[in-house]
Amino acid sequence: MAKKKNEEFVTHIASRAEDFPQWYTDVILKTDMIDYSVVKGCMVIKPYGYRVWELIQSEMDARFKATGHENAYFPLFIPESLLKKEAEHVEGFAPEVAWVTHGGDEELSERLCVRPTSETIICSMYSKWIQSYRDLPVLINQWANVVRWEKSTRPFLRTSEFLWQEGHTAHATSEEAREETERMLEVYREFAYNVLAIPVIVGQKSDKEKFAGAVATYTMEAMMQDGKALQMGTSHYLGDHFAKAYDIQYLSREGKLEPCFTTSWGTSTRMIGGVIMVHGDDRGLILPPKIAPIQAIIIPIAQHKPGVIEKADELFASLKAAGLRVRVDDSDQSAGWKFNQYEMKGVPVRIEIGPKDIENNQVVLVRRDTHEKLVVSMDGLDVTIRTLLDDIHSSMLNKALSYREENTLDAHDFDALQEGVKHGFVRAMWCGERECEDAIKTKSGATTRCMPFDAEPISNVCVHCGKPAKKLTYFAKAY
Amino acid sequence: MAKKKNEEFVTHIASRAEDFPQWYTDVILKTDMIDYSVVKGCMVIKPYGYRVWELIQSEMDARFKATGHENAYFPLFIPESLLKKEAEHVEGFAPEVAWVTHGGDEELSERLCVRPTSETIICSMYSKWIQSYRDLPVLINQWANVVRWEKSTRPFLRTSEFLWQEGHTAHATSEEAREETERMLEVYREFAYNVLAIPVIVGQKSDKEKFAGAVATYTMEAMMQDGKALQMGTSHYLGDHFAKAYDIQYLSREGKLEPCFTTSWGTSTRMIGGVIMVHGDDRGLILPPKIAPIQAIIIPIAQHKPGVIEKADELFASLKAAGLRVRVDDSDQSAGWKFNQYEMKGVPVRIEIGPKDIENNQVVLVRRDTHEKLVVSMDGLDVTIRTLLDDIHSSMLNKALSYREENTLDAHDFDALQEGVKHGFVRAMWCGERECEDAIKTKSGATTRCMPFDAEPISNVCVHCGKPAKKLTYFAKAY
Repeated sequence: MAKKKNEEFVTHIASRAEDFPQWYTDVILKTDMIDYSVVKGCMVIKPYGYRVWELIQSEMDARFKATGHENAYFPLFIPESLLKKEAEHVEGFAPEVAWVTHGGDEELSERLCVRPTSETIICSMYSKWIQSYRDLPVLINQWANVVRWEKSTRPFLRTSEFLWQEGHTAHATSEEAREETERMLEVYREFAYNVLAIPVIVGQKSDKEKFAGAVATYTMEAMMQDGKALQMGTSHYLGDHFAKAYDIQYLSREGKLEPCFTTSWGTSTRMIGGVIMVHGDDRGLILPPKIAPIQAIIIPIAQHKPGVIEKADELFASLKAAGLRVRVDDSDQSAGWKFNQYEMKGVPVRIEIGPKDIENNQVVLVRRDTHEKLVVSMDGLDVTIRTLLDDIHSSMLNKALSYREENTLDAHDFDALQEGVKHGFVRAMWCGERECEDAIKTKSGATTRCMPFDAEPISNVCVHCGKPAKKLTYFAKAY
Repeated sequence: MAKKKNEEFVTHIASRAEDFPQWYTDVILKTDMIDYSVVKGCMVIKPYGYRVWELIQSEMDARFKATGHENAYFPLFIPESLLKKEAEHVEGFAPEVAWVTHGGDEELSERLCVRPTSETIICSMYSKWIQSYRDLPVLINQWANVVRWEKSTRPFLRTSEFLWQEGHTAHATSEEAREETERMLEVYREFAYNVLAIPVIVGQKSDKEKFAGAVATYTMEAMMQDGKALQMGTSHYLGDHFAKAYDIQYLSREGKLEPCFTTSWGTSTRMIGGVIMVHGDDRGLILPPKIAPIQAIIIPIAQHKPGVIEKADELFASLKAAGLRVRVDDSDQSAGWKFNQYEMKGVPVRIEIGPKDIENNQVVLVRRDTHEKLVVSMDGLDVTIRTLLDDIHSSMLNKALSYREENTLDAHDFDALQEGVKHGFVRAMWCGERECEDAIKTKSGATTRCMPFDAEPISNVCVHCGKPAKKLTYFAKAY
């Protein structure tokens, strides 16, 4: 009977092989991560999804503070005239901003845009706060909502409003600003590996793909299970572009007025979409243990038998006290239903405890990622589970890494590139010209994802035009 | 010389007695809590102010989770038609909402308001999520920014955008919803006492002062040092008003379709303004230890002498490891300058350590609240400081309580009320009529703040009109 229920249950989710986009939508809706709202393009992040975001925030915020950053909060609204001061920036963002024109019944004398990103408003404050070299560096991060009016939307990946963090720093020299840009990219990369279990590729964006107003944009890119790339976070070196546009100057030790050099870097709820598409399977979510709202679910077996629920509750209390995120489900659903439910929700470890287990002072652990069953002693169970969670994290990371490697191809001619981007990443040489980049996109549907640092060239000519090429570039279709 | 510097320093802050509003502005600007922005009515919360908010959030969030609530996130925008469904609600909020009319270059088919509060958008989702009694209760909180277009603004107290939390719950019965409303009011009260060291008064709002669309609004009110009241948080019992307007129904155990009963409750960055105005003195901020970004500041004395900075750093490391929020200031400013700086910033404890102290294995502790000096052993310093911080909290709470009591008057006639509200709170009997409430406000400038639960009547006639009166009411001028 449990078998039948199981089958019934999983038929609600499309299989990844058949229809990956539908699988994604099924998973996020059925696991109560999000819901659509009456507001076009805006999603509701439900408690289960929001808890994942809280855990991401907590891990990231600790890293930002450890690298000397403080949080602050800047206004949601940006006057039109302020947005327009940096020419490239406004050109990049103006088509997708929401405009506030009225406050109550009154028409505003100047339109306000709802921030699509906060360089402009933050730079206007830095201009006031920074006077002397003593005021530098300024290292601030903001956790906030931003709005970018999107024609087509997909929960977590592309929505008109989303939640993110945006770091904004100002420095005395371009070297320091470049170091900061690279430091935060490394914070992101380490976070992706060690928290999300996602083996991202890092590198520099092409001029076409870089942030509007940046000198250089660095990115981390991940491969989803459909072979497409997802940009998971970016770190921008802004040079003195914004400092000049917004008049951020400082008096140097030598008494000279100098422009500052600024950076910005951001990651968003989009990362949750990445986690789902990198790790999930046909049964639903598989959450990395460090961001799983429930790390272990205790399911009493034959719970009507005397002592079972009591023992389950006792285990719950001791594991919770040990700092694990644990729940017990003693509802009147069948054990089979519960197995499916928590598998779908991506809970890393299931703990089964029944009369026989109690008799033998043991529990059965079932890993979500491999479905492996382990019979272990109740003694020291918290340590056993912690070790298991670490192992699950490593396995998930390694599996994703193998998948990426298996689906990454070195292309020496354009046919190979076109074929390769159908199911994964392609590494190829590129001349660096915009025309060539556009043509590659038109013909193959793939964009330049990044140019990794210090990568060995695999030839000396462009994969498309045959002109001299110096930079190895990752190409992929992208979200 | 230290004396002179000291004097120089504090002259920058207006005295409370002379000009309380100016003192407030001086304190928040000079301590780097906030700054004004180019956007009218919107403030920037600087790192020092934002850290206070983070500590408030952390304390509150733990309380919400302990009472069974989960966090979620709903859209920033609310379509005009949705806002309008609850008649009283829209009447209350429409005059102060910001309207988005354009996305990029396109005019929207329907205006969107920037949320002034989220009952409407959340209720529209609850209508979808709640089908059966099994789905109840729904206990959700949201941390978010909200916008209320204000004509006149004052940082933290009244700004066009502010940060807050809003709880929204749905229940099967009115009893349960009323219990929830009271439970969260009690969470707020306990938080105010035990975290902010603010002895709030709790009670019910008059019909005039209640939330637009509520059946009953409960509030916590605090007395500022100028005798005015600040509403610090509210909890609303919404009855089935919103459930009916937004169609939130459930199928009962008996198979009958029933409306839900809902609540909402909120507190905001406004509380920080309250903390400043309850506890501060003419030297600046006095922060309650539980929300102080720096709980203890270590200041090396004669720091050029060998071993002083090393010992200060050693103390810093050990106190930090013990979980205290501690800093050491070994900058080249004078000790006197540093004393003033951290007094102004409201740091609860100063730790002075110089050559003589090191010789005697001691440090000098100076309390921010009483300026009391204590010479204590370096051994077990973390425990000594923790105990001291607890004591500072209690002292601050008691001082504020005494102040409130000294400035609260029982009025038996209207002259006494008018006189009393010039410098504090007045307790008086009120008939409960709106006309009388309006007349009292016009004549005295005071509003009804709240009707405390179970308060003993002090007479049986209204202090203003002389008609029968049953409810003891607090009157005060208010922010």
